[in-house]
Order: sequence, then structure tokens, then C-alpha cells
Amino acid sequence: MSLRDKLYEIIFEADTKEGKAFDVVLLLIILASIILVMLESVPRINKEYGELLHIVEWVITIFFSIEYILRVWVVRKPWTYILSFYGIIDLLSVLPTYLSLVLVGSHSLMIIRAIRLLRVFRILKLSRFTAAGQNLGKALWASREKIFVFLFFIVNLVIIVGTLMYLIEGPEHGFRSIPQSIYWAIVTMTTVGYGDISPETPTGQFLASIVMIVGYAVIAVPTGIVTSEIIKGTQTTANTQVCPNCLYDQHDNDARYCKKCGTKLNDAN
Amino acid sequence: MSLRDKLYEIIFEADTKEGKAFDVVLLLIILASIILVMLESVPRINKEYGELLHIVEWVITIFFSIEYILRVWVVRKPWTYILSFYGIIDLLSVLPTYLSLVLVGSHSLMIIRAIRLLRVFRILKLSRFTAAGQNLGKALWASREKIFVFLFFIVNLVIIVGTLMYLIEGPEHGFRSIPQSIYWAIVTMTTVGYGDISPETPTGQFLASIVMIVGYAVIAVPTGIVTSEIIKGTQTTANTQVCPNCLYDQHDNDARYCKKCGTKLNDAN
Amino acid sequence: MSLRDKLYEIIFEADTKEGKAFDVVLLLIILASIILVMLESVPRINKEYGELLHIVEWVITIFFSIEYILRVWVVRKPWTYILSFYGIIDLLSVLPTYLSLVLVGSHSLMIIRAIRLLRVFRILKLSRFTAAGQNLGKALWASREKIFVFLFFIVNLVIIVGTLMYLIEGPEHGFRSIPQSIYWAIVTMTTVGYGDISPETPTGQFLASIVMIVGYAVIAVPTGIVTSEIIKGTQTTANTQVCPNCLYDQHDNDARYCKKCGTKLNDAN
Amino acid sequence: MSLRDKLYEIIFEADTKEGKAFDVVLLLIILASIILVMLESVPRINKEYGELLHIVEWVITIFFSIEYILRVWVVRKPWTYILSFYGIIDLLSVLPTYLSLVLVGSHSLMIIRAIRLLRVFRILKLSRFTAAGQNLGKALWASREKIFVFLFFIVNLVIIVGTLMYLIEGPEHGFRSIPQSIYWAIVTMTTVGYGDISPETPTGQFLASIVMIVGYAVIAVPTGIVTSEIIKGTQTTANTQVCPNCLYDQHDNDARYCKKCGTKLNDAN
Repeated sequence: MSLRDKLYEIIFEADTKEGKAFDVVLLLIILASIILVMLESVPRINKEYGELLHIVEWVITIFFSIEYILRVWVVRKPWTYILSFYGIIDLLSVLPTYLSLVLVGSHSLMIIRAIRLLRVFRILKLSRFTAAGQNLGKALWASREKIFVFLFFIVNLVIIVGTLMYLIEGPEHGFRSIPQSIYWAIVTMTTVGYGDISPETPTGQFLASIVMIVGYAVIAVPTGIVTSEIIKGTQTTANTQVCPNCLYDQHDNDARYCKKCGTKLNDAN
Repeated sequence: MSLRDKLYEIIFEADTKEGKAFDVVLLLIILASIILVMLESVPRINKEYGELLHIVEWVITIFFSIEYILRVWVVRKPWTYILSFYGIIDLLSVLPTYLSLVLVGSHSLMIIRAIRLLRVFRILKLSRFTAAGQNLGKALWASREKIFVFLFFIVNLVIIVGTLMYLIEGPEHGFRSIPQSIYWAIVTMTTVGYGDISPETPTGQFLASIVMIVGYAVIAVPTGIVTSEIIKGTQTTANTQVCPNCLYDQHDNDARYCKKCGTKLNDAN
Repeated sequence: MSLRDKLYEIIFEADTKEGKAFDVVLLLIILASIILVMLESVPRINKEYGELLHIVEWVITIFFSIEYILRVWVVRKPWTYILSFYGIIDLLSVLPTYLSLVLVGSHSLMIIRAIRLLRVFRILKLSRFTAAGQNLGKALWASREKIFVFLFFIVNLVIIVGTLMYLIEGPEHGFRSIPQSIYWAIVTMTTVGYGDISPETPTGQFLASIVMIVGYAVIAVPTGIVTSEIIKGTQTTANTQVCPNCLYDQHDNDARYCKKCGTKLNDAN
Repeated sequence: MSLRDKLYEIIFEADTKEGKAFDVVLLLIILASIILVMLESVPRINKEYGELLHIVEWVITIFFSIEYILRVWVVRKPWTYILSFYGIIDLLSVLPTYLSLVLVGSHSLMIIRAIRLLRVFRILKLSRFTAAGQNLGKALWASREKIFVFLFFIVNLVIIVGTLMYLIEGPEHGFRSIPQSIYWAIVTMTTVGYGDISPETPTGQFLASIVMIVGYAVIAVPTGIVTSEIIKGTQTTANTQVCPNCLYDQHDNDARYCKKCGTKLNDAN
């Protein structure tokens, strides 16, 4: 087994001890790099520890750069990796720091560095949480049409309510335009309720009350949709066995005998 | 096939390629007309681009007018269409712009123009989202009595709580009248919580705490109602068996005999 | 049939046409009397229409008084009615107005007058909403122990969080005492979020963030409890039929034949 | 039966009349001691009744001390109790008051005294609420992986949204750093919505609107997960059949044969 193959196993897979260790170390460095970006944005910390953060940033960047070069080297089809979702994210994780040498003080590079966060999702595919994630994903995917219809009604409702409130309250009570009134309608309907804009006329407060009660009750709809799909998902995926005698096929995962006729089930499960 | 029949197929139906294209174009223009109304309400945009928005408004109005005239012409029973829900909405979508020629500066015509939004619902009937929408509608309709009882209790609760808070906090802490205190109770119970009015006395804060916890837990009730109905709906429609004798088709998955006439069902399921 | 018996049927029952009419009229007057109390509390309305509201108040009080006297007269056991829940409420609905003749300007009589609201619940027992209400009540009653455990944890959690926040933020950021910090914890945990008190130190904001996410996720628990009970209730009450041949007892309400063996079911259901 | 055994039965168990009485008295004193800590933190009450609160504090502490000594004495393995979770809590409940004699005015001892609250959980194990609590616990434990995946996505989402908002709104609109913007994102996503920080630019309000709708709909996911687990838990425990051969007792309601060993079950169900 060549060094390249060995590195491939360590970097891209997680079956060996070294592979797992690499993943854990990588995850910790990714988290450190994200916390770094956060701390840099805090004025007080940046002023005091700016120098130190700068050094750590370069250490992490060099580590990521080496990792990126190794990934390109060990993988069988480099361009497939480079152009893949994670390949682009891996590159974008190191580029901003190098660019900052050329473009001094470019603030917006920070958001690109924050892209590193997406690297965290890589660990999901390595863990036993994949199954849980996939089940949730399936349930959400199965309910996509109902959720779309639901969102369609919500969007229409907030536009109608927002327009009404703009006419009722008007710019003098903070409802300065229809888009802003729609923003208020969303803030209210979703029960967030900042209070930066709130109705002041009795008519406005009455309409707002109705919107709140509707928003409060309407949350039941997406919940009902997703719950029903998750329950269905649980029930359907629980069963792949069929009784060879009576063909009953609603067995539990731990069933060894048919609960309807007592025949022994195949152990293929 | 006459021009009138062909136009009917394009405008009212969506089976042909032209029909689908017409629906997509119409949908885009409707969305454009809604965004137009929104932008007009933003003072800064209206000042700068008012002239342009005015022209676009007329272009859209003329398109909608032609569409309306065509609809009246091609449909078999014009008056049925004109007096139908969508017929009235289609007319109300163009009227305000023409009226603005006569009644200069009439602000409240804006709300009538916003009615155009309702035209968007027309696309729902053309799409595969109809089934999803109908399932949701059925579930909500089936749970209407329970939801009514729930809302009845909520309304009574906020009236009682509102009256109590008016007496506890009083006008000096912002609870200026019972209706306004009820408004506060709704804001709190639905967990919106603007903060424009909030209790200041210990007694008031204690009562508010109870209201919040009740409101927080009580959301479980409509959710439970709707979820239970959606699950029931999913289970009933999951079956494809039809009785060969009486053609009843609402059998459970484990049914072997028709529950209506006792005939044996096919085992194909 | 004596006048007394006839009046009993009209006032206490709702099977006859007169009985239903009486209930509807009574309901409307109760609603009017509640709106009256609300309007009186609005300073502007009270100043302008105070005289009128005063007259309407006396008309309603006299109507309620006659109704109360009639109820006492027609009922077979007057004292059972007078000392019953609704008997006391009916009396409390008229007393405050008479007392206001003696005790001039007594503000707190308003809350007693608001007790009239409870009379509204009387109509629930007459309507077809009783079944829906009872189903909900059963589901909530069946889940009382789990909900109690849930509330117990929530109360403990807000006390612990409130005490912690009092120590972290302290009186200088609005967390003036532990009870008030607990009030803040409830406002946050239930996602109400007034914003009258909000953490200002980074540590406080971090703890608040955790409390919010916990509060956000924890709402799933009462919802799950109640939903599970409502679903169970729907399933259990749907079935009282037993097949006389194979004793299968999971029939739908509209089943006429056993779906397992095809035997005709009894029509007793 | 020795005094020590008798005391053991009274203090640690709840089967006898004396044992139950002791638990009730203990619970009331624990609650009193918690309320005491709360009241002490209210400036006005502390100033007026400080002397009284101080005396009550010592009475409770001495009672707890005696109780602690008795527990250590009567229990068979004192060190197992002393080092157990409740043993440490019981000790921490009395220590702060004694320490306050030495360390005058130490404010942070208050939080240690608040630890007394945890003693309340002791009563849970004595009551019939244990079963309800265990069922809930099981359901939450069974859904731990899905909830972890859900929280992982939420945390990532608020970090991404927080960073974006920091760049869009910036320090001049209250988004002073990325950690604080993440705090805002959590406040918004969980629909708490204090309003201490809220977006002011149209772009910021648009992004906030999307975050709110996502947060509003996403609550469906944990609810669906927990509901599905609670329903599953209810269904499994609903059965009382036991296999006469292998004594397996987790049969479905419609099982006629043991799914573990194929033995016919009794039809008593």
C-alpha cells in the first residue's frame, strides 16, 4: 500500500483508527477557525488580541492549504474533487487569507471565510447521525408539496395583511411602506414580535389580534404535515420481512416468527 | 376548431403547450403588478421612479383589460364568469387604474389594486399542488368543530385575563382600557410579545407568567387536532382496494372483506 | 302543561323552537353586556356616551334579574340551582349594578360584572360542539400526569435560569431581583420575548441563547403528549362493534360487515 | 425494629404513613427555603424584613442539618449516600449559610443556596408521576439522534445567518459583532423576538423575514420527532400479552403468535 493510498484512507475515509483521528482533529481545527472569525469581529477583542488572532489565522490557513493540496494529490480524479461541492468550499476556506495580503482591509472577505462553517457538514456523512438525518430529510421531502402550499398561503396572507395595515395605520405609526408593513406582518404572524413596529389605532390592534391568533393556530399545519410524514416514515421503514407461509408483511424489525401464523421468518433482515 | 374555442383552451385550460405558456406569462405579470403596488408605496422609490412605475402600471392594466375582454368573449356563459369569484377579482384588478383618471389622488384605490393578489390563487387549480391543498383543506375542515371550541376558550380566556390585567395594572402602566388589555392578552398568549405594553407590578408579572405558560402549552391543542386529522387522512387515502360487488373504495389496508356488503376483496393489494 | 313547565322547557332546555330562540336571544344579550363593560373602560367612549351606556346597563340588568327570578321559580329544586355554579354566576351578573347604587364609584365591581362572561359557557352544553369539547377534554385529562411532569420541569428550569441570570446580569441591567429574573426566564422560555428586560453581557446573552433554543425545542413535548392522546382518543372511540363470528373488534363506525371474515355486524351501533 | 431502621423507613421511604408525612413536610420546607432565597433578593423586602428572613434562614438550615445528619446515620452505607447526587445536594443546601458566618457578604453563595431547588426532584421518585416522567424520558431518549441532527442544523443556520446580518446591517444598526449577530439570529429563529436588536435596512429586514418563516416552520421538525416517539411508546406499552413459552411481553395488539419463538398466544386479549 503506497503512501498515497494510505493518505487517501486517512483523509477521505473514517474506517481506520488514523482516519477517525484525522477527522476529529480536522473538526476541531474547523471549529477553532470559525470561533476565530467570530472573535475577530468583536471590537474589544480585536483591539487587544488582534496580533495573536492574526498569527492563529495564518497557522490554520497553512494547515488547511496543506490539507487541500494533499486531498488533490491523493484523490484518484483530482478535478472531480476540485469541482465538487466540498472541493470548492475547501478552496474558499483558504483563499480569503491569501487575498488579504493583496487587498488590504477588505471587510467582505470575512463572509467568505465564514464559508468554512460548511466544512462542518462533512462530518455528518462519517457518523451514525447520517441515518437520523436521512430519515428527517425523507420526511421533509415527502411533505414538500404540502409545505409549499402552506408557504404559498402564508406569503399571500402576509401580503394582504401588510397592505391592509399600511392603509389602516399609515406612515405616521411606523408603517412607512407596504414592504415594511409586510415585514411587520411576518414578524407578527410568526409570533416573533420585535415591537420595533406595532399597531397603535384600535382598528390596527384589532386586525393585529386576528393575525396573531391565526398565526398561533396555523403553526399546527406544518407541524401536522411533518409529524404525519415522520410517523409514516417510521412505520414504513420498519418492515421489509414477509412471512413465507401467509405472506403477512407488517412485521417488526425484531420479529423472528410471523405473529399471524407462527411460521419462522427468514433471517435475511 | 374556431379561434374562440382555441383561445378558450389557451386562456381557461392548461392541457396544451400554449395554455401552459399563457398561465406562466399571466402569473409573472400578476406578480409584477403586485410588486409594482408595493414599490409605489415606498416614498423614496415613488419619488425617483414614479414616472416609470406609472407607465408600467398602465401597460399591465391594458394587458389585464384585454385578457378580461377575451375571457368574457370566449367563455360559453359570459355572465356566469363575470359574476363568479374570479370574474369579479379580474374586473377589480383593472378598475382602480381607470378610476384614478377620474378620482385624482385617491389613496384607498391602492387596496383594491392589491386585490390582484387573489388572482394568484387561480394557478393553484392548474397545478399538481391541488391534491396537496385539498388534503390539507379536508384535514382542516374535519377538525373545524374542535378548532372552534378551542378558539372559543382562547377568546374567553383573553377577555378574562385582559379584564383582570386592566384592574391589576391600570391605565398608569399602559393598560388604558379593557379592549387594549385584551389586545395585550392576545399578544402574550400567542407568544408574540411586542413589548409595547408589558406588566410592571409584581402581581401583573405573576399573572402574565401564568398566561405565558398556558399560552405556551395550549398551542399543543390545535397542533394535536390538526396532526390527528392529517394522519387519519393519510391512512384512509393510502388504500387502493375496490369492492368488486358494490365498488366501495375506502377499505383499510388489512381488510379482506368489504365492510359495506361483505363481499371478499381481491388479494392483489 | 302549566305555564311553569312551559317556561322551564324554554329557559332550561333547547329542544323546542322557543327554547332555541330563548338561548340565542340570551346569548346575544350576554355578549352585549360584555361589550358594554369593555366600552365603559375606554376613557374617550365613557366620557362621550357614558349616559347611554348607563341606561343600557340598567336595561340588561333588569332583563337578567327577571331571567334569574324566572329560573328560580320554574326549576323544581330552587336551592340546587341557586347554589349551583351557574346559579351563582347568574346572581353575580346582576348584583354589581344594584350595589353600585349604594357604593358609589366602586371600581372593582367591574371585575365582578365581567364574570358575566362565564355565562357564555352555558351555550356550549346546548350545542353540537359538546362532543368536540368533550373529546378535547378527555385527551387533555388523559395526558394530565405527563403535562404535570412537564410543567414541573419547566417551573424548576425557569427558577434555576432566573437565579443564574440574576447573578450574571445583576440589578444594573434590569434583573432587579430573583422573582423578576424568573419572570424574564418565563418570558424567554415561552418565546414571548417582550424585550422590557433583556441580557446585555455576553455571558447573559449566551445563557439566554441556550434558554431560547431549549424553550423552542421543548414545546415539542406537550405537543407530542396531547397529539398522541388525541390520536388515541380518535382510534378508541371509533369502535364499539364486535364481529359475532370471529370476534374482531376494530371496525370503523360505518362498517356493516366484518372486514376480516365478511359476517354481517349487528346494527346496534 | 430499631429506631435507626424506623427512621430509615420514615426518611428514605414513603410506604408508611409517617414516611409520607415526612416527605410532605420536607417538600414544604424545601419550597419555603427557595421562596426565602427569592425574597431576600428583592431590595424592598430585604430592607424591611431582612431580620426576619435571616432568622427563618437559620431555622431552615438547622432543620436541614439535622435531616442530613440523620440521613448519614440511618443509611446502611453512609459514604454511598454522601457521595451520591442527592447526598451532595443535601450538603450544599446547608453549607452556604454556615460559610456566610466566615465570609461576610459573599453574594455568590446565593446561587449555591438556590441548589436546594434540586432537592425538589427527590419527590418525583416517590410519586406516581415517575411512570409519566419515565415515558417522556424514554421518548426523548429514543429521539436523541434526530434531535441532535436538528440542533446541529439550527446552530449552523444561526451562525451563517448571524454572519450575514453582521455584514448587511453592521455595527451602526446594533449588530456590533458576529457573536452578537448570532445572538440576534437565535432570538429571531426561536420566535422570541426581544426587539433589543432589530434589522433596519430593507435587505436586513428581507433576510430577517426569511429567517422568521424558516424558524416558524422548522419548529415542526422537533415536534414531529417527539410526537412520533411518544405515539410509538404509547402503542408498545398498550399491550398486556405474554408469550407462555418464552415470556416475551412486547407483542402487538393483533399478534396471534409470539414473534420471538412462534408459540401461539392466549386469546384472552
